[in-house]
Amino acid sequence: MYRERVRNAALLERITSADEAAKLIRDGMTVGMSGFTRAGEAKAVPMALAERAKTDPLKITLITGASLGNDLDKTMAEAHLLARRIPFQADPALRRAINDGEVMFVDQHLSETVEMLRTRQLGPVDVAVIEAVAITEDGGIVPTTSVGNSASFAILADKVIVEINLAQPDTLEGLHDIYIPSYRPARMPIPIVSPESRVGMPYIPIDPDKIAAIVVTEKLDSSSTILPPDEDTQAIAGHLSEFLQHEVKAGRLTNTLQPLQAGIGTIANAVMHGLIDTPFHNLKMYSEVLQDSTFDLFDAGKLDFASGSSITVSAERYQTVLEDLARYKSRLVLRPQEISNHPEVVRRLGIIGINTALEFDIYGNVNSTHVGGTKMMNGIGGSGDFARNGYMSIFVTKSTAKDDVISSVVPMVSHVDHNEHDVDVLITEYGLADLRGLAPRERAPLIIANCVHPAYREQLGDYYRRAVARGGHTPHVIEEALSWHGRLRETGSMKI
Amino acid sequence: MYRERVRNAALLERITSADEAAKLIRDGMTVGMSGFTRAGEAKAVPMALAERAKTDPLKITLITGASLGNDLDKTMAEAHLLARRIPFQADPALRRAINDGEVMFVDQHLSETVEMLRTRQLGPVDVAVIEAVAITEDGGIVPTTSVGNSASFAILADKVIVEINLAQPDTLEGLHDIYIPSYRPARMPIPIVSPESRVGMPYIPIDPDKIAAIVVTEKLDSSSTILPPDEDTQAIAGHLSEFLQHEVKAGRLTNTLQPLQAGIGTIANAVMHGLIDTPFHNLKMYSEVLQDSTFDLFDAGKLDFASGSSITVSAERYQTVLEDLARYKSRLVLRPQEISNHPEVVRRLGIIGINTALEFDIYGNVNSTHVGGTKMMNGIGGSGDFARNGYMSIFVTKSTAKDDVISSVVPMVSHVDHNEHDVDVLITEYGLADLRGLAPRERAPLIIANCVHPAYREQLGDYYRRAVARGGHTPHVIEEALSWHGRLRETGSMKI
Repeated sequence: MYRERVRNAALLERITSADEAAKLIRDGMTVGMSGFTRAGEAKAVPMALAERAKTDPLKITLITGASLGNDLDKTMAEAHLLARRIPFQADPALRRAINDGEVMFVDQHLSETVEMLRTRQLGPVDVAVIEAVAITEDGGIVPTTSVGNSASFAILADKVIVEINLAQPDTLEGLHDIYIPSYRPARMPIPIVSPESRVGMPYIPIDPDKIAAIVVTEKLDSSSTILPPDEDTQAIAGHLSEFLQHEVKAGRLTNTLQPLQAGIGTIANAVMHGLIDTPFHNLKMYSEVLQDSTFDLFDAGKLDFASGSSITVSAERYQTVLEDLARYKSRLVLRPQEISNHPEVVRRLGIIGINTALEFDIYGNVNSTHVGGTKMMNGIGGSGDFARNGYMSIFVTKSTAKDDVISSVVPMVSHVDHNEHDVDVLITEYGLADLRGLAPRERAPLIIANCVHPAYREQLGDYYRRAVARGGHTPHVIEEALSWHGRLRETGSMKI
Repeated sequence: MYRERVRNAALLERITSADEAAKLIRDGMTVGMSGFTRAGEAKAVPMALAERAKTDPLKITLITGASLGNDLDKTMAEAHLLARRIPFQADPALRRAINDGEVMFVDQHLSETVEMLRTRQLGPVDVAVIEAVAITEDGGIVPTTSVGNSASFAILADKVIVEINLAQPDTLEGLHDIYIPSYRPARMPIPIVSPESRVGMPYIPIDPDKIAAIVVTEKLDSSSTILPPDEDTQAIAGHLSEFLQHEVKAGRLTNTLQPLQAGIGTIANAVMHGLIDTPFHNLKMYSEVLQDSTFDLFDAGKLDFASGSSITVSAERYQTVLEDLARYKSRLVLRPQEISNHPEVVRRLGIIGINTALEFDIYGNVNSTHVGGTKMMNGIGGSGDFARNGYMSIFVTKSTAKDDVISSVVPMVSHVDHNEHDVDVLITEYGLADLRGLAPRERAPLIIANCVHPAYREQLGDYYRRAVARGGHTPHVIEEALSWHGRLRETGSMKI
């Protein structure tokens, strides 16, 4: 079967074992691996590397698209294989190693990593390891369920290892649109003018001589770990839908809205799912990860087209999406994350970005990454590419966490990923705050009234009143601004 | 003389006094006025409005390009004319009214204001007041020393008041390139592919019937208030030059660098001036404000071309630049600030952005706006457009302020305008920290060693060591993170 997938006959002789291929990777190297939010990651070579590290200690800098599935980040972290990890992860074991200071984690906007590699501000990439459904006659690599940074890794690396995954359906071929911006200073505009624009090639074009090894695998992607919508996420979806309908009534949007982007995870997925029961129609997505809700919206006849950088669905959805891809293929495209998240395209298309906050403050600053201001959760991901440059930037979260001992709305966030300038709308299950055109002193009362859990409303109102008494454009009782986080640390609760 | 400037004969009859024209502006209106960093602001109508407000109280929302000269923001603030002010200011009296909560200030990325107006997320603009050197035969408005947001104000407003300023040299005509992005979702790429690209018209095209009044003025722009380079700013310029030469040696840049952007003010101007004594040549600027240093670089034969949104020079420079504009005109273009700062163009051209920080922290987060976390200084301006989207983002500041009682490097900034993801290089007079590709635990020792004033180095090192003992990706002693600001407030110094 792999002979049909490796269509360049000369390359057949480079087929080898994962252990052999992994020998191309040596201590101190920078390795670029495919994989974007549990989709399309190289599966065999990283396992072989981790196994080898048990007896032959080595450390690498690992750059990916985003998070990996199949517990690969866990396995590599536990094998102490990772000196440096770029630009995103979502694994508890790796997170622990990062927070312990063992792994140096460089948390980047997802559109920026390859731009830094291309300009040699990062790198160079010694070896790329790319999962593929096929290699074309002239050596082009056809990615699987994600593009991520794979194209630039393969183009920039000295050597490329391709993992041909027989478990990934060959119908994936033709889904991808590989466009690489030209080198500056002679760069031309990216010709994408709508989510369905196809402007590149269906495979990654590289010199076949760079393909140093091919490994045949047949392991599936991990399923997504999202939870089904619950009462709170349905309430959040309801507030969003009501708000967008109000925008339509005010003449600022039509019922086809603007192209939508949704962050990774349960809440954003539930919010997108919630669009099924709305008057909106002929929607388009220009997003990163296409989750279950994308296909729910297709099935409900609400969505016309979806552009992303990966497909990451639940176990239940796997059959209907990946085993029956033809149903959706004409309405889908997967792009490099540099393009799915590119400021140029995000601004041109006028994306409505919906992302998840860990916490936000009374002035609309958002923390997406750091628990208690210090401990890394996953990373900023692509949220900053969309929040800064899109038409409208919406952040959603539940109003509390851990049985209400943590308020998601605080006097001052303990870490800022998205500041007041980039946050237009905030939503919790209690309500929505539309911050557009408002000064800080107008935002705070609105956020406190609309978004805060009742258990914290008076406490936050009290803080704000005392802050205003001190004055300032953005009033704070500065020595108390982070006291909620200190109290949580000392007493186990933010409550006074 | 004004007959030569108002070339549409039918419009001559709309010439009137500032007082009469100002009557078009009524209580509660939103007014868009020309003006970008003390250049090209409407001068007579705002004065007439402020005078009228003394006896006939009225409040308006005032949107401009950026800050105004001729003490206009002061005069309007003191007349209590301003209910709301968008998107930037730099006046002590207005700043006081903002910090007292009298004026609602909406602090925006400078590229975003007109995008929000165009989509009616702000506004509508009732009246635009635009300074011009001329009105063309078909009613086109030729701006003066700035474009700012003037074009979109005139296009979007119901009525337009034009101030024909006879003191502004008519040689300004032909300097401007007015390009307005098309409406989404049918927006095409902005065709700018280098700083010298001319893609629009030399005037603002509007229906002449919208020009409701014309006022003739002859007041000069205010001079810039920048101070000459001093020992510290020369040291900062030296560190930058050395760093850029290192980048050239490493093969990441050539001696023509990438197009340069420089923030407003003394330090950024001094740093740009410092490029005169370097091996760099054939430089180009794609910036907002063209200050003295732009023309110093032209005169030194270092600069080939400069694109900006305004020309703001010192009194000494006025004669050589504005009275003798022909010397420079072929190497200059002034654009709408939406375009000078557009994420699409900034990313495509690969700008090196050099902006000023109020303070930064040991992890590279930058505060550009809020003194002590609460009091607004000027606003974020365009720095966020460049820092997020450019090739490289550099922030400069002196290591201390106010006779060393304030350290510009702190454990945690009291307000975040640019977060760790957007800050590549930090420079003070003591040295430079190159943060590219580094994790927080690598950045902190580098920043402490290279950038901090000796009086605070041990104090900051002590904080960092205790923070690391607690763990985390970005270690903090959270209850102490803002204690330097609290101590300054209580004791008058950040020193222990």
